[in-house]
Amino acid sequence: MNFCPNCAAPIALKVPPGDNRPRFVCTACDTVHYKNPLMVLGTIPEHGDKILLCKRAIEPRYGKWTLPAGFMENGESTEEAALRETLEEAKAHVALSGLFSVISVPHVNQVHMFYRARLLNLDFGAGEESLEVALFDEADIPWPELAFRTISTTLHRYFEDRKKGGFGLHSESLEPQHS
Amino acid sequence: MNFCPNCAAPIALKVPPGDNRPRFVCTACDTVHYKNPLMVLGTIPEHGDKILLCKRAIEPRYGKWTLPAGFMENGESTEEAALRETLEEAKAHVALSGLFSVISVPHVNQVHMFYRARLLNLDFGAGEESLEVALFDEADIPWPELAFRTISTTLHRYFEDRKKGGFGLHSESLEPQHS
Repeated sequence: MNFCPNCAAPIALKVPPGDNRPRFVCTACDTVHYKNPLMVLGTIPEHGDKILLCKRAIEPRYGKWTLPAGFMENGESTEEAALRETLEEAKAHVALSGLFSVISVPHVNQVHMFYRARLLNLDFGAGEESLEVALFDEADIPWPELAFRTISTTLHRYFEDRKKGGFGLHSESLEPQHS
Repeated sequence: MNFCPNCAAPIALKVPPGDNRPRFVCTACDTVHYKNPLMVLGTIPEHGDKILLCKRAIEPRYGKWTLPAGFMENGESTEEAALRETLEEAKAHVALSGLFSVISVPHVNQVHMFYRARLLNLDFGAGEESLEVALFDEADIPWPELAFRTISTTLHRYFEDRKKGGFGLHSESLEPQHS
């Protein structure tokens, strides 16, 4: 952020009065412009023992597999965002059956949330941001080809819970990965 | 948003190629500036049968009672945000015991999330944004004096669950209130 979206004057990074961390503050109109984490909402679409995954047609992670998910928009609820993303990416109609994972990724300022969902029919297909959409048994999940760690974490927790016979809510945080 | 934070040129509201809703787009550098929902994180601090509430020292809802909560910051997890806000507003040290409510408020572009939490000691007190901090029995909760509907909804669900003998995860959405 270089210029004030309100008045176009230069921005300075400084701690506003009463605050305790640096913010983007306008040098002319004093407006404080906050930066906050983004929410990514998605679903775990179930059909019997199978799970629906989408092969990404966009960067980052072009060609990798993901659960249908994307950035939550203003004016919608977390449930609406999860349903919209599932429809957009997988052309899939689902009924939500409970929030399953809330995974913070602090180093990229994101929180990823996934609802369990039941596919209402098999008329799914690749949306504009997907190359391919398919149902997978647990044994066939392409673990090394998953797009994001929030996806693999969510799926690991999902199959663990399924073996235990009950689904919980998983709230956790991912640290940066050092290679 | 009037001017581009990147280059200071005027902003136009238009649908970018491949998108399906109007965005703030720079008329010079074409940067798309997205606006997304904000997360508010807080806790339900428990001490025996009592719950800790804070009387707000800031607008909006100056003088009304709230659970300790506030906007999640970049670089932190939902858990860290909930703990930080509890410490800042109520000077209270707690141990989190599970995510309890995820309440979307689409008409103000917010999602409020509350963790149940156990007070580790009674050395709490009013932080800078609180006039007063106190423990309440269910019978003494100042329902008409609560600051926000996400607070009253969370507390209603909390006491309902407590009567049932088990705490669930409550994901729901609030509609605009017409008076």
